[in-house]
Amino acid sequence: MSATDHQLIDFPPLIFPSELVQSCRELDKTELKVAGFEFAGDYAGIKKKSSRFDLGLIIAPQGALCAGVYTQNQVVAAPVILSRQHLAQSKTVKAVIVNSGNANACTGTQGMHHAQEVTTAVMNTLLERGMFLEESQIQIASTGVIGAPLPVQKITQALPQLFQHRSVDGLERFACSIMTTDNRPKFRGIKVKLSGLDGANGCEELTIIGCSKGAGMIHPNMATMLGYLCTDAVLCPENTQALWSNICDQSFNAISIDGDTSTNDTALLLSSGRSGTRALEGEALAFFTQATQVLARALAVDILRDGEGVEHIAHITVKGARNVIEARQVAQTIALSPLVKTALNGCDPNWGRIVAAVGRSGVSVNPEKISLSIADAQIYQDGQWQGLEAEQKAHQAMLGAEYPIRIDLGLGLSEFTLSSTDLSEQYVRINADYRS
Amino acid sequence: MSATDHQLIDFPPLIFPSELVQSCRELDKTELKVAGFEFAGDYAGIKKKSSRFDLGLIIAPQGALCAGVYTQNQVVAAPVILSRQHLAQSKTVKAVIVNSGNANACTGTQGMHHAQEVTTAVMNTLLERGMFLEESQIQIASTGVIGAPLPVQKITQALPQLFQHRSVDGLERFACSIMTTDNRPKFRGIKVKLSGLDGANGCEELTIIGCSKGAGMIHPNMATMLGYLCTDAVLCPENTQALWSNICDQSFNAISIDGDTSTNDTALLLSSGRSGTRALEGEALAFFTQATQVLARALAVDILRDGEGVEHIAHITVKGARNVIEARQVAQTIALSPLVKTALNGCDPNWGRIVAAVGRSGVSVNPEKISLSIADAQIYQDGQWQGLEAEQKAHQAMLGAEYPIRIDLGLGLSEFTLSSTDLSEQYVRINADYRS
Repeated sequence: MSATDHQLIDFPPLIFPSELVQSCRELDKTELKVAGFEFAGDYAGIKKKSSRFDLGLIIAPQGALCAGVYTQNQVVAAPVILSRQHLAQSKTVKAVIVNSGNANACTGTQGMHHAQEVTTAVMNTLLERGMFLEESQIQIASTGVIGAPLPVQKITQALPQLFQHRSVDGLERFACSIMTTDNRPKFRGIKVKLSGLDGANGCEELTIIGCSKGAGMIHPNMATMLGYLCTDAVLCPENTQALWSNICDQSFNAISIDGDTSTNDTALLLSSGRSGTRALEGEALAFFTQATQVLARALAVDILRDGEGVEHIAHITVKGARNVIEARQVAQTIALSPLVKTALNGCDPNWGRIVAAVGRSGVSVNPEKISLSIADAQIYQDGQWQGLEAEQKAHQAMLGAEYPIRIDLGLGLSEFTLSSTDLSEQYVRINADYRS
Repeated sequence: MSATDHQLIDFPPLIFPSELVQSCRELDKTELKVAGFEFAGDYAGIKKKSSRFDLGLIIAPQGALCAGVYTQNQVVAAPVILSRQHLAQSKTVKAVIVNSGNANACTGTQGMHHAQEVTTAVMNTLLERGMFLEESQIQIASTGVIGAPLPVQKITQALPQLFQHRSVDGLERFACSIMTTDNRPKFRGIKVKLSGLDGANGCEELTIIGCSKGAGMIHPNMATMLGYLCTDAVLCPENTQALWSNICDQSFNAISIDGDTSTNDTALLLSSGRSGTRALEGEALAFFTQATQVLARALAVDILRDGEGVEHIAHITVKGARNVIEARQVAQTIALSPLVKTALNGCDPNWGRIVAAVGRSGVSVNPEKISLSIADAQIYQDGQWQGLEAEQKAHQAMLGAEYPIRIDLGLGLSEFTLSSTDLSEQYVRINADYRS
């Protein structure tokens, strides 16, 4: 079975949980706009091929409340260091500048100067065109080759035209501009109907749109991954960062291709507050959070669907854990096992490799309480193999592009779901050849 | 560059450190005997192909002092549980029985009964032939397919002939009988001249011979790996286990293919005490330990050399660490990174991936103090890239079968060396197809 047979190329439509299905709707491509934001994407000459965009810009003319989650790698790229500083100074963001083709990582002091030159140039470009902003209101990100100096001049020269070409329906162009080895831009949106915000305004509509980027080096803790969500919801500065961190834990930090985390990862939530409703709280806030999580999770899984050499995606749920941390640890150990990943590639319900991964996860388990199912096939129950028929059924499900794997530790009530990929010959080919 | 171009098939001769070179000598294949041990290997019908041995036996007619290191996986195969119990009851071993083709793992209570049936049958076979022993003096190991019931009868029926065919020069047959996906048996030996044991006996000669087995699932902490070392040295029961655990930490637990640890791994040191010297202590013991470690490390690296789809081996040394635990943790994170492993496969000195792995290792580091060399090429120094020329030099070294990678954290004086492999398309092919 060859890589091309199974290449995951379609991004399936959103599936909403039952409590959201009445009031949420996925947007068509033509509807991907949200009040208070403009987007641009263009070719600045950083990448070799002019057919590929490499510079993107988000503008919030009247400012947007920003929450950010950045890489947890200790080796941090200059743009991440600078963006963290800016967010600490200002929770309001007016511009987000992103380049692909060069990561400006492992570039030392020069890299910091380069990142600052870019944000200064963005500020000046906007000031000259009548948009007042502080430098700390600019977020910056870079993705691409590590170690090479950032071609600052190419970026600054491209800025005026990039700014000029911004548009409210430019999300796709922006999504294209942040791609590296991605095959397709990843962007989506949701409309949410909220009834009775504080019982005062009747039925209100919110919009959340976003895009993501990432291919290799994807793993929990933000690996060569960029995600930007923009909404018109009215949020409170006090709790938005916590809300966004929680959402990222269940979305951008709950996917895994190869366990490598990059130096550059960034996920931002930007809210313009232009929906015209009162600030979200209580049930309405919970509803908005859940919808945003659905969108963020879809954009995260889209990264896997477009991952380098990915042929199958397993949504691994570890349940019956003592706590979420242990559930996550077991899920990660399974997700990162090359033997499990190659078995997924071969559509082989090799439960022995999965159970062995559980056993070495570092979480204390009782082998006789472990159960395991793949899709609807219960292949291992309370430490015992359930026979060939169940394996055959699991094998059938594993021929598909995506399926769930559920491990029950039988120890408690906590669970965690991590979406992971197989390991294909094509993955090796792409990553062995990356720079040569 | 195809897998076959680079397949590592030769096991190079031992290289002794300077302090051993005068008095240690690697044995020829014809010299692989050691007083007090007999070996056998045969076909019992567990594997499908009768051309492949699947049952092995080591006999120490007068008993041997035994030290054992077993898998750290919490999901432990029945033979490991039983062997641990036996070693706790008796430090003297008279027989080691090993089958390949079936791991007797994840087989529950039935698996324990099966392992016990085998050791009982071994005891009876030996008793009937005039060799007195307790059941606790038998060590047992199984390797192969997980979950399937052990074909006990095939084993017990083959025992009389296996015992009959034992011989002092049977190490190669034994080494063949413990193979699974190994391409070649792995066995070696050393003669050590020790002068002046306690200044009393003048020049004495010790022999250490051994074999190993393992292919997939190799990682520190004893993964689908078997290792048996036999010596005529006179050791003390009090410190031999600690000595052997230390040796395993630097050998069988210092290699990594894919990070998966199996349920069955076992490494035993057996000493017959037949060398005729006094018990080793002080300098002589240190000397013997060092020589044993050289042999154990070679047998461990031989596993990598014969590993599934292995084209390159990198000996990763992390130095300048605060302590050995941190050095090991950083080395493991690098060794297990799929992106680093695919770069090794492509002979690509992709230091960015290595530095990113250091950064996410969980060990607190100072990015500006990190330096990195591959073979003789210093490609990264104090957080700065050293340019294309160094990379070219590193690339040349990486075309070879084995080479060192050295990471200096610049934080302390501790170091650890972990030998690791690349990740090839062939690895994926072999492991995706394993059971189908």
